[in-house]
Amino acid sequence: GHPLFRDMPTTIFEKMSIRARETGAINLGQGFPDGPGPHEVLEAAAHALLNRSNQYPPMMGLPELRAAIAAHYGVHQGLDLRPEEVIVTSGATEALAASLMALVTPGDEVLVLAPLYDSYVPLIERAGGVAKVITLTPPEWRITQEALAAAASDRTRLILLNNPTNPTAVVMREAELALLARFCVERDLIAICDEVWEHVIFDGARYQSLMAFPGMRERTVKIGSAGKIFSLTGWKVGWMCAAPALAALLARAHQFLTFTTAPNLQWAVAEGLGKPAQWFAQMRDDYQASRDRLAEGLEAAGYAVQPSAATWFLSIDLPASGIAMDDVTFCERIIDEAGVAAIPVSAFFPDGAVTSLVRLCFSKADGVIDAAVDRLARFR
Amino acid sequence: GHPLFRDMPTTIFEKMSIRARETGAINLGQGFPDGPGPHEVLEAAAHALLNRSNQYPPMMGLPELRAAIAAHYGVHQGLDLRPEEVIVTSGATEALAASLMALVTPGDEVLVLAPLYDSYVPLIERAGGVAKVITLTPPEWRITQEALAAAASDRTRLILLNNPTNPTAVVMREAELALLARFCVERDLIAICDEVWEHVIFDGARYQSLMAFPGMRERTVKIGSAGKIFSLTGWKVGWMCAAPALAALLARAHQFLTFTTAPNLQWAVAEGLGKPAQWFAQMRDDYQASRDRLAEGLEAAGYAVQPSAATWFLSIDLPASGIAMDDVTFCERIIDEAGVAAIPVSAFFPDGAVTSLVRLCFSKADGVIDAAVDRLARFR
Ligand SMILES: CSCCC(=O)C(=O)O
Ligand SMILES: CSCCC(=O)C(=O)O
Repeated sequence: GHPLFRDMPTTIFEKMSIRARETGAINLGQGFPDGPGPHEVLEAAAHALLNRSNQYPPMMGLPELRAAIAAHYGVHQGLDLRPEEVIVTSGATEALAASLMALVTPGDEVLVLAPLYDSYVPLIERAGGVAKVITLTPPEWRITQEALAAAASDRTRLILLNNPTNPTAVVMREAELALLARFCVERDLIAICDEVWEHVIFDGARYQSLMAFPGMRERTVKIGSAGKIFSLTGWKVGWMCAAPALAALLARAHQFLTFTTAPNLQWAVAEGLGKPAQWFAQMRDDYQASRDRLAEGLEAAGYAVQPSAATWFLSIDLPASGIAMDDVTFCERIIDEAGVAAIPVSAFFPDGAVTSLVRLCFSKADGVIDAAVDRLARFR
Repeated sequence: GHPLFRDMPTTIFEKMSIRARETGAINLGQGFPDGPGPHEVLEAAAHALLNRSNQYPPMMGLPELRAAIAAHYGVHQGLDLRPEEVIVTSGATEALAASLMALVTPGDEVLVLAPLYDSYVPLIERAGGVAKVITLTPPEWRITQEALAAAASDRTRLILLNNPTNPTAVVMREAELALLARFCVERDLIAICDEVWEHVIFDGARYQSLMAFPGMRERTVKIGSAGKIFSLTGWKVGWMCAAPALAALLARAHQFLTFTTAPNLQWAVAEGLGKPAQWFAQMRDDYQASRDRLAEGLEAAGYAVQPSAATWFLSIDLPASGIAMDDVTFCERIIDEAGVAAIPVSAFFPDGAVTSLVRLCFSKADGVIDAAVDRLARFR
């Protein structure tokens, strides 16, 4: 017996956070905000904790939260989800695991796009599937018909996507989504869409879910995360939305992976999702200002900064910055010598294809961003 | 492709709770207390929610909680665990899933004892394993050398146990644990021990973990649940304890199933686990009084009640009560005609072997127990 997860490394985010704690480095590695989170959402959670049930909520999630998620996507993305099509999970991580455990049959091929989140391939393999990696290339990271067709076979059953994309900070373009939709329909594929960054998009962009494209309503699993929407990454409240036939399969896996999620956090998220559009716009504006602050600081210090249209991340391009190191070496050196933790983008490629980019997280207080910029300026 | 979880039913606990909500029946089905839970633990969680970080805690759990769990088992069970040997999970359900996903290689045989919790077999199969079911028989549900030997083969790698046992309310006897330990050592098996009921034992019994038996320290995964210990089933804070070589494998699976668990709940559980022995004794005494109240009421009404040495459950024996119905029929009838929800014990057998017993949950207020007894008395 050779346990299937045995040779997996500890996730890079955890490893860098541990080193940042040990060395006292400013942690721009793992993606999390350093603020306290929205006061009213925290208060709602505390109120529910002390005044409402702390026993098992329904396995699919509290009715209030399922309704709030469905309504939220109606208002913000023009989707027509019913509460019955929403399953609450213990974070988007569980939603990804449950989706793959529910939908992959041993031998199925699953298309993924690199760069990708480091749980995707191990989960596909643990479910008995075969990951077929389509490697995108900077700076546009564009998905093409040719690349999709070359990766697909008659064993392909699923495609697993992250849009907006971590770490590239790209929002997939309308033409790409239309292409993906046509491809899924033609080949009868299910799309698992990790859309945890859907609300964190900048420069006035309007988010479109792949689920909204022709033919995709019945074949998409849409995954979301309260941790990202409300800047509370530790809460681990996520969800997966899908048409009834798919949702029934997803529920089977969810009930045996975690069964359910703390009800007080669910009530608070339900309340938060009902906030007016202005609240979400303000959140985006705040992160956009942080993005600009970090980008401008780094550029002034001579770093070449890649565009960031979404997420809490931007990347610096090492060769374009005149730095003759690969990303892993640069990250090793700046954590020790500059006191800044970052993530090498090669960690997002199963084969380490791209080694020229380093990801930095800007969901931090101005003073923290400024201090990191200072340190990185002095490192040059 | 035929998704592996597809033909699994919705868990019986959820199904009965839904019907109880729909019909207004008193819910003695799914196991949960109807009290608010311990005030200080709730206050600690609310305080942490409003005053401490709500961002990702470390993947293995907060250091405070890992230390508290290790120390707790030192005081209460004489175990010598180190904090590094503890991984916090999103409930014991996740701990079970992570253990099986981490340790089962496709083709491995896993021994299980029926009656068993309904997630065991689907999880083993989803991990690629083959469940070998050893069916125990009432009223003693005793494990024998012969039954173990008959079920084992040279593909057997693991045994998955629940002690104290739901739904039989048995605490495994010392001779059985010694037998299990010898069996695991001789055959080089790993034991996954679902010990979520370890604190809810009655009549002055002292709990012994299989991990404490000779040769088991390095080959046991010990699973626990704050939900059961603190009567807060919705919190979904659990853990798995194992020697370093096993813990490293378990962490691989955990990081990709949920990654981590809400930090405020983790801090509160850490505080709760440090309560004096008297606090746990009081909790046990309270549940024992509820057990006695339900048992005496049912006996006075002519029902034959099985002994309950642990858990929040007792069973009635239908034939011995002079009731000529199988357990499923009886449960259907009492939910509709008497207004009481219960669980048919056949649901805990993959092949429905035992149909003579019905499980009732007594972790309820006195008035609720009395009302249920009244209704069941009138049903006769
Ligand atoms: C689960 S830790 C990873 C957090 C995150 O989304 C990131 O840093 O990319
Ligand atoms: C996860 S719902 C099951 C609760 C429980 O332990 C039981 O009722 O047996």
